[in-house]
Amino acid sequence: MLDDEEGRDFDKSDNHNYEIERQLTEEFSLMREGSTTLLVPSESLQTKVPPRTPAFFNPAAKLSRDISTLVYSSFIRLNGCLFKKVPITLADAFSGVGARSIRVANEIPTVDKVILNDLNPVAITAAKKSAMTNGVEEKCLFSRKDVHVFLNERRSIKKERYVIVDLDPFGSPSPYADSLVRAVTDGGLISVTATDTAVLFGKYPKVCWRKYYSKPINCTYSNEIAVRILISFLGLIAGRMDLSIEPVFAHSHRHYSRVYVRVHVSSNEANKLVDNLGYITHCFDCGDRRCHPLVFPSPPPLSCCICGGGNNNDSKKKLSVAGPLWVKPIFSKQLISDILCIDGNNYGAKSDDFLNRVGGHAPAPEDHNSDPMLDNHKIGVSNSKGSLLSLSPSSDDSVQVPYQKYFRQIFQLLHTAGLELDDQPYYYTIDEVGSAMRTSPPPMNSILEQINQGGFRISRTSFRPTGFKTNASMEEIKKLL
Amino acid sequence: MLDDEEGRDFDKSDNHNYEIERQLTEEFSLMREGSTTLLVPSESLQTKVPPRTPAFFNPAAKLSRDISTLVYSSFIRLNGCLFKKVPITLADAFSGVGARSIRVANEIPTVDKVILNDLNPVAITAAKKSAMTNGVEEKCLFSRKDVHVFLNERRSIKKERYVIVDLDPFGSPSPYADSLVRAVTDGGLISVTATDTAVLFGKYPKVCWRKYYSKPINCTYSNEIAVRILISFLGLIAGRMDLSIEPVFAHSHRHYSRVYVRVHVSSNEANKLVDNLGYITHCFDCGDRRCHPLVFPSPPPLSCCICGGGNNNDSKKKLSVAGPLWVKPIFSKQLISDILCIDGNNYGAKSDDFLNRVGGHAPAPEDHNSDPMLDNHKIGVSNSKGSLLSLSPSSDDSVQVPYQKYFRQIFQLLHTAGLELDDQPYYYTIDEVGSAMRTSPPPMNSILEQINQGGFRISRTSFRPTGFKTNASMEEIKKLL
Repeated sequence: MLDDEEGRDFDKSDNHNYEIERQLTEEFSLMREGSTTLLVPSESLQTKVPPRTPAFFNPAAKLSRDISTLVYSSFIRLNGCLFKKVPITLADAFSGVGARSIRVANEIPTVDKVILNDLNPVAITAAKKSAMTNGVEEKCLFSRKDVHVFLNERRSIKKERYVIVDLDPFGSPSPYADSLVRAVTDGGLISVTATDTAVLFGKYPKVCWRKYYSKPINCTYSNEIAVRILISFLGLIAGRMDLSIEPVFAHSHRHYSRVYVRVHVSSNEANKLVDNLGYITHCFDCGDRRCHPLVFPSPPPLSCCICGGGNNNDSKKKLSVAGPLWVKPIFSKQLISDILCIDGNNYGAKSDDFLNRVGGHAPAPEDHNSDPMLDNHKIGVSNSKGSLLSLSPSSDDSVQVPYQKYFRQIFQLLHTAGLELDDQPYYYTIDEVGSAMRTSPPPMNSILEQINQGGFRISRTSFRPTGFKTNASMEEIKKLL
Repeated sequence: MLDDEEGRDFDKSDNHNYEIERQLTEEFSLMREGSTTLLVPSESLQTKVPPRTPAFFNPAAKLSRDISTLVYSSFIRLNGCLFKKVPITLADAFSGVGARSIRVANEIPTVDKVILNDLNPVAITAAKKSAMTNGVEEKCLFSRKDVHVFLNERRSIKKERYVIVDLDPFGSPSPYADSLVRAVTDGGLISVTATDTAVLFGKYPKVCWRKYYSKPINCTYSNEIAVRILISFLGLIAGRMDLSIEPVFAHSHRHYSRVYVRVHVSSNEANKLVDNLGYITHCFDCGDRRCHPLVFPSPPPLSCCICGGGNNNDSKKKLSVAGPLWVKPIFSKQLISDILCIDGNNYGAKSDDFLNRVGGHAPAPEDHNSDPMLDNHKIGVSNSKGSLLSLSPSSDDSVQVPYQKYFRQIFQLLHTAGLELDDQPYYYTIDEVGSAMRTSPPPMNSILEQINQGGFRISRTSFRPTGFKTNASMEEIKKLL
């Protein structure tokens, strides 16, 4: 365990060492997450909104960290051979107490080096102690620099960019995105968390346009729009540096959106970014939603092609436009299959292996029922022949032990994403369909079956348990049900 | 003269010191520009395209450096009181041999400190020697860092951003823009040069969209569109960091576009960026051009309101769209008046004082006739009462001494900009008007007078000597002439 040699050696220069030690002794506790022991602020385990001092730690982000560990691990399995001549490094730009990156160091043996950066000396000292507790101190470097200096220095001084870079700031990642894409190596992976949900979900469209160069809509599928705006934004930033992007995974959970994106050095591919972007028009009158290509700066249509609703101030007939946003696939099915230990052509479930990988420990109390959206979640998808597979969780999956319910949720999230029609940037909900038909919401299974029998593609969506994706329009859905 | 303490002390660590000294002795020459002596590569003074090794120096960019000195100097005179508690610093992110920044150190006494950064040890050593030659070594700091580290470190470590930051890279400034706006203090000034003219002038619209988030048009006024795209782009980058921008000056000369923009810390103002942006539609059939507000992502019109030309593939009737770009004023008339020693309400000319400021030396041979666009350039503008002032250069201005012709050109550029209708983002040329009327191009004075008498606003433009700006449409212009 070494301080980054370029960084300030705060162990020697910081006069508050004694105070830091006192805080760590009196105000921090050890807790277990995954198969890792973490030193975290005690108060963060007791309050609903974790405090920012003496250091920030959010127990509820366990799902995000569990998925990180799975995605990083699979990414290295699938692409590690590309980085044979360099060590597999992961940089955590805002590491805090190191919850994510100490877990990576401890739980992913294929990661050679983890570099944690945070300005907060208390957080970094806690992370050091966690590294020692888990015996991974030799794998870890610690740095306390301005995030931009941290992300930019490596590429220039050591001619070595990081293989994986994580960016999980307070609020919007927008101000850091440029430095982020510069920090990652060709073919490497960036993972980004955005917690400015109100902005990305359409409450402050002007701020969203300023921060992400895109207009959101506040509607039933805002969480998917948010993720696609975030990916499009990363593509716009990368393009300026002659880099192209390739989305790998994304999810939106409670108050954050999180995306995993590969970055490739290629100005030719970067020029094709425009082909991956588009607009969504959503008619708040008839519920029709459509995707339109982006022919910059040509426009999406101004009125609904079904009911004639226009994007004027007439609130009864309103066509809203979201975008530009990423309208092409956002999930690497290969990566998801790999995570689930499932052959890409034959979806199934080997939950034992999966459970071993996320660690067989009891989750924190917050984890119980942590995401009702994902609960009681059956998988449905149209297979390549067009017939419907509707899978109840198998006996392997429907583990009855309460603390394993959480792992089933992760499994279902990934499984649904693996089967999702992610080339379609929006979904419908059963409530919307019921409302459009002026009936009670139809059962999901009946919707899946009837739309599929009508000759349309259909799948569930990982973004909402009551949502489904189909290439049928709202008009066609109503006719079929 | 000190190396930046955070930088590598290349004087000691670099093994090629002897080789650098040899190069400076054998391959460099002293030359004079402004009132400053510069050590520059001899070959750059002899060839048309200056070589990049052993260091880059472009004698033809003298105009750009002369204007820089004038703008920086005036900016400090007008706003220096805002920075009373901090030294007036200028950072030159890609300093090369220091032609711009050593001139600033030598010619602007109000600048307290100049910080030069370049990775090339030969260039930086030459800059050091130039600083000593001019006796300004105490005012200069030298650094040899990656440009992003250089621009980001100051704000975090010393809590002191620069008052003025210049960015003059090879090619596009786009990849560096985020670090640039972070480096400048609240209310400070950034100056940016773009030499990727083919991209900004519309030859590669896809690359322009990727680099500047805007679509250019290849047309008669592409040079003004380029400048306005560059300003809009800086606004889009600044907005993400809760910063707003205020254009101060801009010019486009030969193969570069250059803009001067103030940066303010204000997320409220940043949210208003959209009000300053818009589209230009240009009909290649009837020559009609119009400005449209940006209501993101709402569109500009799809067909010409005059002749019905649409933006389809029919080359005969073609409506092209440029934007989003900055459609509001781009010149600080106060700053230009200050430079010209002219009261803002009473345009006139005190060329003696002006000539003293840019230095009364003979320009390099390249400077003679260096910009035919600016030659024989008379000033015309509609005053606040609507009547036309058509000013021939006064006896003071029309200096007959050949080497003073160059200063008259700068004077005319600034004078025209000071009187320009810069709230209109495009201009017409007399050739276009002649072509539209199927006659030979009408004389400029006759155009200025007749359009003004028709009740329209009209001015010359600093972007082209044969161009003029008016709120009359092409149809109205044709009727009036």
